[in-house]
Amino acid sequence: MSDSLDCEACSLTPLDLYERLAAQGDKVRLLKTEKASKDETDEAVKLLLALKTDYKKLTGQEYKAGSPPTDVTLVTNNGPAATEEEYDFVDPWTVQTSNAKGVDYDKLIVKFLSMKLESKLSFLVYEFTKQVTNVLLYMALFFRDVHQILDAYENKKSFYLYTGRGPSSEAMHVGHLIPFIFTKWLQDVFDIPLVVQLTDDEKYLWKDITPEEAYKYAIENTKDIIACGFDMSKTFIFSDLDYMGASPGFYRNVVKVQKHVTFNQVKGIFGFTDSDCIGKISFPAIQAAPSFSSSFPQIFNGRKDIPCLIPCAIDQDPYFRMTRDVAPRIGYSKPALLHSTFFPALQGAQTKMSASDPNSSIFLTDTMKQIKTKINKHAFSGGKDTIEDHRKYGGNCDVDVSFMYLTFFLEDDEKLEQIKQDYTSGALLTGELKKILIETLQPLIAAHQERRKQVTEETVKQFMTPRKLAFEF
Amino acid sequence: MSDSLDCEACSLTPLDLYERLAAQGDKVRLLKTEKASKDETDEAVKLLLALKTDYKKLTGQEYKAGSPPTDVTLVTNNGPAATEEEYDFVDPWTVQTSNAKGVDYDKLIVKFLSMKLESKLSFLVYEFTKQVTNVLLYMALFFRDVHQILDAYENKKSFYLYTGRGPSSEAMHVGHLIPFIFTKWLQDVFDIPLVVQLTDDEKYLWKDITPEEAYKYAIENTKDIIACGFDMSKTFIFSDLDYMGASPGFYRNVVKVQKHVTFNQVKGIFGFTDSDCIGKISFPAIQAAPSFSSSFPQIFNGRKDIPCLIPCAIDQDPYFRMTRDVAPRIGYSKPALLHSTFFPALQGAQTKMSASDPNSSIFLTDTMKQIKTKINKHAFSGGKDTIEDHRKYGGNCDVDVSFMYLTFFLEDDEKLEQIKQDYTSGALLTGELKKILIETLQPLIAAHQERRKQVTEETVKQFMTPRKLAFEF
Repeated sequence: MSDSLDCEACSLTPLDLYERLAAQGDKVRLLKTEKASKDETDEAVKLLLALKTDYKKLTGQEYKAGSPPTDVTLVTNNGPAATEEEYDFVDPWTVQTSNAKGVDYDKLIVKFLSMKLESKLSFLVYEFTKQVTNVLLYMALFFRDVHQILDAYENKKSFYLYTGRGPSSEAMHVGHLIPFIFTKWLQDVFDIPLVVQLTDDEKYLWKDITPEEAYKYAIENTKDIIACGFDMSKTFIFSDLDYMGASPGFYRNVVKVQKHVTFNQVKGIFGFTDSDCIGKISFPAIQAAPSFSSSFPQIFNGRKDIPCLIPCAIDQDPYFRMTRDVAPRIGYSKPALLHSTFFPALQGAQTKMSASDPNSSIFLTDTMKQIKTKINKHAFSGGKDTIEDHRKYGGNCDVDVSFMYLTFFLEDDEKLEQIKQDYTSGALLTGELKKILIETLQPLIAAHQERRKQVTEETVKQFMTPRKLAFEF
Repeated sequence: MSDSLDCEACSLTPLDLYERLAAQGDKVRLLKTEKASKDETDEAVKLLLALKTDYKKLTGQEYKAGSPPTDVTLVTNNGPAATEEEYDFVDPWTVQTSNAKGVDYDKLIVKFLSMKLESKLSFLVYEFTKQVTNVLLYMALFFRDVHQILDAYENKKSFYLYTGRGPSSEAMHVGHLIPFIFTKWLQDVFDIPLVVQLTDDEKYLWKDITPEEAYKYAIENTKDIIACGFDMSKTFIFSDLDYMGASPGFYRNVVKVQKHVTFNQVKGIFGFTDSDCIGKISFPAIQAAPSFSSSFPQIFNGRKDIPCLIPCAIDQDPYFRMTRDVAPRIGYSKPALLHSTFFPALQGAQTKMSASDPNSSIFLTDTMKQIKTKINKHAFSGGKDTIEDHRKYGGNCDVDVSFMYLTFFLEDDEKLEQIKQDYTSGALLTGELKKILIETLQPLIAAHQERRKQVTEETVKQFMTPRKLAFEF
């Protein structure tokens, strides 16, 4: 990225630039906190000043932290660029890339303005948690506004976690587990409440299913989420179809968000058109509302000021950019975000995982034999065509799906690094790499299946009952 | 109206024409039921056949009762026609006319496709209720699909009433009472449950007020509504902000409607633009949902098939045309409607009543002295400039606001007719006419104020608690 953004050439809106500036301001603060080298700090400050100049050029206003530009439209044009050889398309419903290595996150960062969790910043997270693990390094590449969460933590104030799932079918695959494994890790580390939203209303609006079917999927998915091991005394899982009708606090926040977002804005952010139903158009407010603690009066005793940290896949960012734009205008703090990367399909990062294609992923209901067969038969390989060539030239970890899966599920960093070296050198053959993945996934999924069996209807009901959680604020 | 509609020239959409056809079919059925003259019946049948021809021409499909045309957009263009000398503009937020006689209901009928409650049809309502009174004749000029309600009544099946109020301020004027007096009359005659929706969410979305203010207005307005004398054991009054968060049945119906209405449709019906907030855009579904009995499981024991009759001012019709379009597509019956006419401002039918202008109407909080002064000073007169001219030429009841008010509030038809004759002939002077109105309104409002004083917070709470009503279905 050049030091200054050529705003006339680029498609940044005033709000994009404002957010970019806010992020750069955070970065400079962080560099100073961690006493980074003078050169590095100077460079960051230089970019900050350049951005401020651009901002004034674009908006006619001086940049002021905490005051977003007025009368601006939120716009992200993230559609496929037909003229480019490679393209990524990412929105909350579609993740597509033409690149076997997967989505280009560096480009996505620029588009979504998330901040990369570089090693120098993970230092702070280390300070924060005293527990840097590969979970964080591999799963959460980006974050936004974690500063306020750090502040809360430093001042021994609490915060809460919010994540979600769109229950589009009963079948969840291993990729769906990633945000939940990560969220559970955060809950364990910080010992804080968690709310999990099941957007059964969204799935009813988007898909050709009845509300009853969507609700049934929500319940079935809840069992898989519970099986991830969340602490019942600190976790509230809710279906929108149920909870909207069970909490005036939630609906009040939904309406507040709905009042402060125009059709123009959701058109820009989500690509809605005039032919879309009004349910889709207003839905983003329903995903936004759980970011505010007053949506859960039973948990937070009616307090409106408990900060929220949202671990989620990066494709959900458009919802939360909208949320972060609205928050200060309705008197709330912006939620902080930790974005996890996408989980690739077995056939490769440029193909789509689909619940209707059982071979596109490993499902949580697969037998041990199915796991083995699918990986051996369908996992895209970065190896060479013959053993001779593989030994001679080595394999390519960047496009090898088995290796990508291991980066998510193998907890031992050193072992992972060794695998990478061996596969790249040709010492490790594709069949051997696949065997490691099979032996990693099989016990993990077997254990999940065992825990899911233990989840009774009564347990589901308890998790899904609006109630006080075991936490004092 | 000519026998056949020139569809290329007129702005009727396929759906408008479909509804017109359905209404005409109802009319033919009614004429046959009441054994009307052969000529009259033949004429109605002739129009029905002409409409069917038009329908086929416009849609390429044969008209089939109960099957609305597919792929059509709901459009009503009811805006001011700048080239015409006189214009009416009617939507749920604005009623404007350049005509001192008030809105031209005959034109509005064509636009809104409501059916005029002519004397021959009121015969059926008489049969229905055995109680034709001036209330019905003056207040409810139009109806839609009352056929299903007549069917239910004939088969000794029940139905329920649904009306509402937008709580835009604490101050209600006498005009606001009209739909409620009419609704109470219907409840008394039919002995059925009533639900009253207070759209505090709508007022928050449309006006510059907080949700707390809108909710407060809802509570204050509820007191005035209760003071109309509704039977607590059969009446449920609810604020949207509260009830949405208290009933999963209600939200499920809201989402169902939201899935089946596009932005294009609400743009056509309500004139929304891309700059409107997504709350406004999705709100119509919230006004639609109470038309379906499953929105009130506590009242109807979860039954989805109890027919609904909606008495309301005709400007609310756009909401219910949308509702009637959606109903069959989500498996529900269309609500029936009884439209009351607008209540004019003191300054004349072509001016606007406004809560911010205390002289534009008689408010329910006015003192007896204020009522007298306002009528004497501000009620637009149809009399002549001098007593001599008035005696000679007579007054004009069509534009005299005092006379218009009496048509709403004077229960004695014969006396009203006598007043009309005397004022038109010049025998009755303007001052005398105003005195009659003052003497009619003062005791009515004094009694209302007395009843409102009796309404305690506890009574409000009881009316607004979701509960079983004293009725068996």
